Amino acid sequence: MQNKSPVIIDLKFDRQEVATALKGAFADREVIDLAHPANKARDLSGIDYAVVWKPSADLFSRANDLKAVFSGGAGVDHVMTLPGLPEVPVVRFVDPTLTTRMSEWVVLQCLLHLRQFKAYEALNAKRIWRELAQPEAKEVTVGIMGLGVLGSDAAAKLRVMGFEVVGWSRRMKQIDGIETFDAAGLDAFLARTDILVGLLPLTADTRGLFNAALFSKLRRKGALGGPIFVNAGRGGSQVEADILAALDDGTLAGASLDVFEQEPLPLESRLWTHEKVFMTPHAAAASDVRALFAHVEQQISRLESGQPLQHVVDRQAGY
Amino acid sequence: MQNKSPVIIDLKFDRQEVATALKGAFADREVIDLAHPANKARDLSGIDYAVVWKPSADLFSRANDLKAVFSGGAGVDHVMTLPGLPEVPVVRFVDPTLTTRMSEWVVLQCLLHLRQFKAYEALNAKRIWRELAQPEAKEVTVGIMGLGVLGSDAAAKLRVMGFEVVGWSRRMKQIDGIETFDAAGLDAFLARTDILVGLLPLTADTRGLFNAALFSKLRRKGALGGPIFVNAGRGGSQVEADILAALDDGTLAGASLDVFEQEPLPLESRLWTHEKVFMTPHAAAASDVRALFAHVEQQISRLESGQPLQHVVDRQAGY
Repeated sequence: MQNKSPVIIDLKFDRQEVATALKGAFADREVIDLAHPANKARDLSGIDYAVVWKPSADLFSRANDLKAVFSGGAGVDHVMTLPGLPEVPVVRFVDPTLTTRMSEWVVLQCLLHLRQFKAYEALNAKRIWRELAQPEAKEVTVGIMGLGVLGSDAAAKLRVMGFEVVGWSRRMKQIDGIETFDAAGLDAFLARTDILVGLLPLTADTRGLFNAALFSKLRRKGALGGPIFVNAGRGGSQVEADILAALDDGTLAGASLDVFEQEPLPLESRLWTHEKVFMTPHAAAASDVRALFAHVEQQISRLESGQPLQHVVDRQAGY
Repeated sequence: MQNKSPVIIDLKFDRQEVATALKGAFADREVIDLAHPANKARDLSGIDYAVVWKPSADLFSRANDLKAVFSGGAGVDHVMTLPGLPEVPVVRFVDPTLTTRMSEWVVLQCLLHLRQFKAYEALNAKRIWRELAQPEAKEVTVGIMGLGVLGSDAAAKLRVMGFEVVGWSRRMKQIDGIETFDAAGLDAFLARTDILVGLLPLTADTRGLFNAALFSKLRRKGALGGPIFVNAGRGGSQVEADILAALDDGTLAGASLDVFEQEPLPLESRLWTHEKVFMTPHAAAASDVRALFAHVEQQISRLESGQPLQHVVDRQAGY
């Protein structure tokens, strides 16, 4: 045990959940949980690994011998922008649970809009029994931006549910049964899309991407009576003032948001209770912390046995 | 054309929708739409076919030479109980649209309960940013009662979304990847079920089936904190007083209802706005009338060319 490097834990998650998950994790090495006061001034040099979510700004100056950094979630923007990030592999958290949960959320949101949930709720409140004209999933095209593990899984499940699906990614990707577009094809992709699903990482390219100009390019003559915007990627990719204006003037017919420019969403935001918006508090695909530690243990084991790490972030692309 | 039997239309659907769908339907034979005043006293003897949904009580005494009766929906209880139903094939309406829409609705309801939609709505109304503990689909077992075309399709799609699925039907059925139970296994099936989905026809056996005694046999220790009842079969199968009592005393943690003992749902029903209930006005899987007529034309064509009719109701079983 003594010859195995400790692992640093700097996870701004629920304390109790991290503590519970740490029991039984990393049995073969020491765990240095930075949330513990005793570790506040501890020397972190010479340590190989850190598992982080929104880590402290001084982490990389203190832990200056890291060989790998493991992100606590699928997104890595919280760590890529941190000062002093060493030139070592940054590993994204990919696990079936996270993927399954994200697809649950995305399919749920698409079905809520397809099946006119808000309109039926309004009728029910007035006790009016009326069946609404109802497009079928195959009459509606969901356009997914971001075709990584999450986007690909959501695409496959939406197809099973009957939706037409098209996909967009910066670099062209091939996905069975789905027409895909790349950077140059963005306008063509948007013109095909009735429900736009954002599953993009936050990078310099995606910051503020979901704005008025983009919303105005979505298909307007689709079966839902207007385009829908769904975002479970990163709040920094969306311009909330533009979303609200687009909902007000009919450019968008509805939205589902799990992420926000500022989180927690400020109390004064109209998005909390907007009649055309479904919202959840960045809860679409919560990381299961036990699954995270199992994934990190597996990757460390690969590294220490000479195999390549998986899910390593492309430093150029930023995701 | 003259040697082909006319077809009687007696559909208590939206008039406009039927009229629109009739344009271009049954091009090779006369259509006798009983909603048209001119046909009120018309002699219907000698006519082979009738397409019906909640037909007039005197239909079968007037049309006393029918060779086949086509139901306007998947359910046939509206015609099986009618006086004078002749001993001819009764054909159920099965089409991909109806099946797809029903599965959209069933998957939507299961995801609404899984993802704690009502709890998040309540938090949003108070502008509280809080992520709730969240079971994953695989921790939840959906038990489907009724394993015909609709039940089988819903089961397959729920499995794709990650749910555990078990099935029940009066007579044992085999479905890939799903444990199934028959009449004798009802209690064992209920004890495994977190979300009970009713897709049963209304027969003497199923009338009042979903009652307090049945709800009390559902699994109580599942990941959702209590069992959920979902019904998109027939309202006559449920006892609404028992549903409300079970919601009040915690025997049920929630419900989704598309069908009701009396439709339209009476104004005074608490189900319209119950905080634990999602409801829709018998809109889960509306029949597309054009698709209905295409299906009837296809079946008549089979009959007239000597092939057997499809989707014929079992008169003994009543469905």
